[in-house]
Amino acid sequence: MPIAETPLTGPVPSLPRGFSVAGLHAGLKRNPTREDISLVVSDRPATAAGVYTQNLVYAAPVAFDRARTPGTGFRGVVINSGNANACTGSQGEADTAAMAATAAAAIGSLEGSVLVMSTGIIGEFLPREKIEGGIKDAALQLGTDEASVVRAARGLMTTDTRPKLAGDCFGRTAGGESYRLLGMAKGAAMIGPKLATMLGLVITDAALTPDDAQRLLSEAADLTFNCVSVDGHMSTNDTVLLLANGAADEQPLTGDNLAAFGEMLTTTCQTLAREIADDGEGATHVIRVDVSGAASRDAARRVARAVTDSPLVKTAVSGADPNWGRIVSAAGYAGVPFDPARLVLRLNGIELFRNASPVAFDAAAASASIRAQRETVIELDLGDGPGTIRFFSSDLTAEYVRLNADYHT
Amino acid sequence: MPIAETPLTGPVPSLPRGFSVAGLHAGLKRNPTREDISLVVSDRPATAAGVYTQNLVYAAPVAFDRARTPGTGFRGVVINSGNANACTGSQGEADTAAMAATAAAAIGSLEGSVLVMSTGIIGEFLPREKIEGGIKDAALQLGTDEASVVRAARGLMTTDTRPKLAGDCFGRTAGGESYRLLGMAKGAAMIGPKLATMLGLVITDAALTPDDAQRLLSEAADLTFNCVSVDGHMSTNDTVLLLANGAADEQPLTGDNLAAFGEMLTTTCQTLAREIADDGEGATHVIRVDVSGAASRDAARRVARAVTDSPLVKTAVSGADPNWGRIVSAAGYAGVPFDPARLVLRLNGIELFRNASPVAFDAAAASASIRAQRETVIELDLGDGPGTIRFFSSDLTAEYVRLNADYHT
Repeated sequence: MPIAETPLTGPVPSLPRGFSVAGLHAGLKRNPTREDISLVVSDRPATAAGVYTQNLVYAAPVAFDRARTPGTGFRGVVINSGNANACTGSQGEADTAAMAATAAAAIGSLEGSVLVMSTGIIGEFLPREKIEGGIKDAALQLGTDEASVVRAARGLMTTDTRPKLAGDCFGRTAGGESYRLLGMAKGAAMIGPKLATMLGLVITDAALTPDDAQRLLSEAADLTFNCVSVDGHMSTNDTVLLLANGAADEQPLTGDNLAAFGEMLTTTCQTLAREIADDGEGATHVIRVDVSGAASRDAARRVARAVTDSPLVKTAVSGADPNWGRIVSAAGYAGVPFDPARLVLRLNGIELFRNASPVAFDAAAASASIRAQRETVIELDLGDGPGTIRFFSSDLTAEYVRLNADYHT
Repeated sequence: MPIAETPLTGPVPSLPRGFSVAGLHAGLKRNPTREDISLVVSDRPATAAGVYTQNLVYAAPVAFDRARTPGTGFRGVVINSGNANACTGSQGEADTAAMAATAAAAIGSLEGSVLVMSTGIIGEFLPREKIEGGIKDAALQLGTDEASVVRAARGLMTTDTRPKLAGDCFGRTAGGESYRLLGMAKGAAMIGPKLATMLGLVITDAALTPDDAQRLLSEAADLTFNCVSVDGHMSTNDTVLLLANGAADEQPLTGDNLAAFGEMLTTTCQTLAREIADDGEGATHVIRVDVSGAASRDAARRVARAVTDSPLVKTAVSGADPNWGRIVSAAGYAGVPFDPARLVLRLNGIELFRNASPVAFDAAAASASIRAQRETVIELDLGDGPGTIRFFSSDLTAEYVRLNADYHT
């Protein structure tokens, strides 16, 4: 059964200067209306940084990009969906190198100046002819209009129901204009943090040193893409790339502009991460877990993740059931020491647990509040320290099971 | 919607000498045909050992039993289902103590000679009058026949579709007879190891020292109940108790008899653990994961658990999809170092992955083999050391989601 598509949420952000993009159907996906090759090109050499899956079993494009970032002199990124090029051995490595070389030649650039991302089924070899044809066609279709941006974002999608775009202007160039930043991402499934199972690409017309690019991307990803989970399954292909080309101003960012960039990067990644949870396979609710009072950010994240990975919590939300015992017990096995007597739990603002005891509450009203909102907010205060985290996930529905029991092979 | 019941699998094992048992409906569950109080009584003081949940948020009966085991002088165990007495603060502690005191008085024994187990909904106070009435009635209905044993096992059930009983004879007493061992358990959901979310009770008419009882129960649980997962959610109430009353021979076991007991205990716990996975909520398959070649047993268990906790793996099995990429990638994020180039994966005996590359295989035949069998066997050889584990889990179906989106509150 085909996946229903929904339109893009919100306006398309402005494309940063000096970039052009394309997305088209090259035949990797069966449905001819679905883009499966995207090309993002900078008209000048850009600084690139990347963050990658921590899975021991990682795909060929992850190895390729990880060996090359952070660095300078990059002219673009080529992306395919429909095939992850993972668990494909030495042929997979050769196929990734060929994708990069084909794209570099198609845009008239040097070999080694293009990075690669792949997503889709694991364990099948890339259809090299379709990909090469698609890349060459994409190079001829590069554009800077909104439709091209949306097609490029659609080229990343697998079972996503909509493209995911975010970004805005920030800072002030020497010439008095704003810098621009644009991010796109895909999610849907195999979403478990460190990183979420996802691809993301953020481009900006600011200039950045490789060190700043890597540091700020790592920090932003830690607070956003590493705080999203759909099914807790860490992918072989997770990749977030940042390209900064200096088309707005070739002087690397410093001071207030650098700070403004870091904030905009985090905000953009946060929006994309929430979108990934919201568009999780079969999701009827996005679950936001705010943990506070943990010993550290990492401890807070572990508690949030234990709660959101529990199928009992996820089904309680899809069933609009304020079953707080499932939440409290999941926090208790997160592997983070805390005193249950100091734990406070609120769900959609309603206090449910305090002093190691249930709090009298209106279960019908709590259930109605879950039913009435797309977002369910779980707040857990451990009363143990300064660590906080905001974590996004999705609920578990019969539709998730149907999608994943039927998807391939 | 009520849960369909299925009959007990296999014959009812013999009740060990000196024990009598009862199970009845006291009104904790709505359905009057469902037992919710069980009483297991020894006619003489018994040695007791226990293993318990590692959740920081643990129920009142867990605290009660943990403080008292291992030890001697125990005359019985009282169990209720339908209410976990978890997250109930000091009132919960008082309610557990009252259950134990009521049961001890009802069987004419000393206070402090009865242990307690509870399972069911978290965060509600026990209905003390119903429980006290039920315990007194149960003490009048104690029997040694098969029907009493089945009713006692049914008194542990929550959303289990059938009672779970296992056990057999072992060893040889000084008088030339066999010892007997009987185990009963409940599972269904909140099944995540360390321990599985479960209650278990094993009784034997052999005599054991408290040290031997605790050591052998801990070892057996580590190999069995700690190797079963339905949904990875560790409960607040997990408890396995062992009672050894010496009614067959009052001399504590040594030598060959002690070894035979250890083997029978592990076999019995293994059978019960597999039954828990097989009867997982909504399950259409039991998934057996055999990991070998790990650096240690613990490393093997972590890989098995990552694989069985992945909803993508669980839905692939329910969909009869030999989607080995999901299995290999789950192994890769288990947090256990290994070389993917040495990993070998077989599914129902069919080799799917070796040398970091896909193996050509007949996908239709592999899918048919999943469909044809209740048990799906996943074998993972990490090629890295001597550590092995056998782990049981269940697949994920839309029925699991329905059950858990609808269950209470």
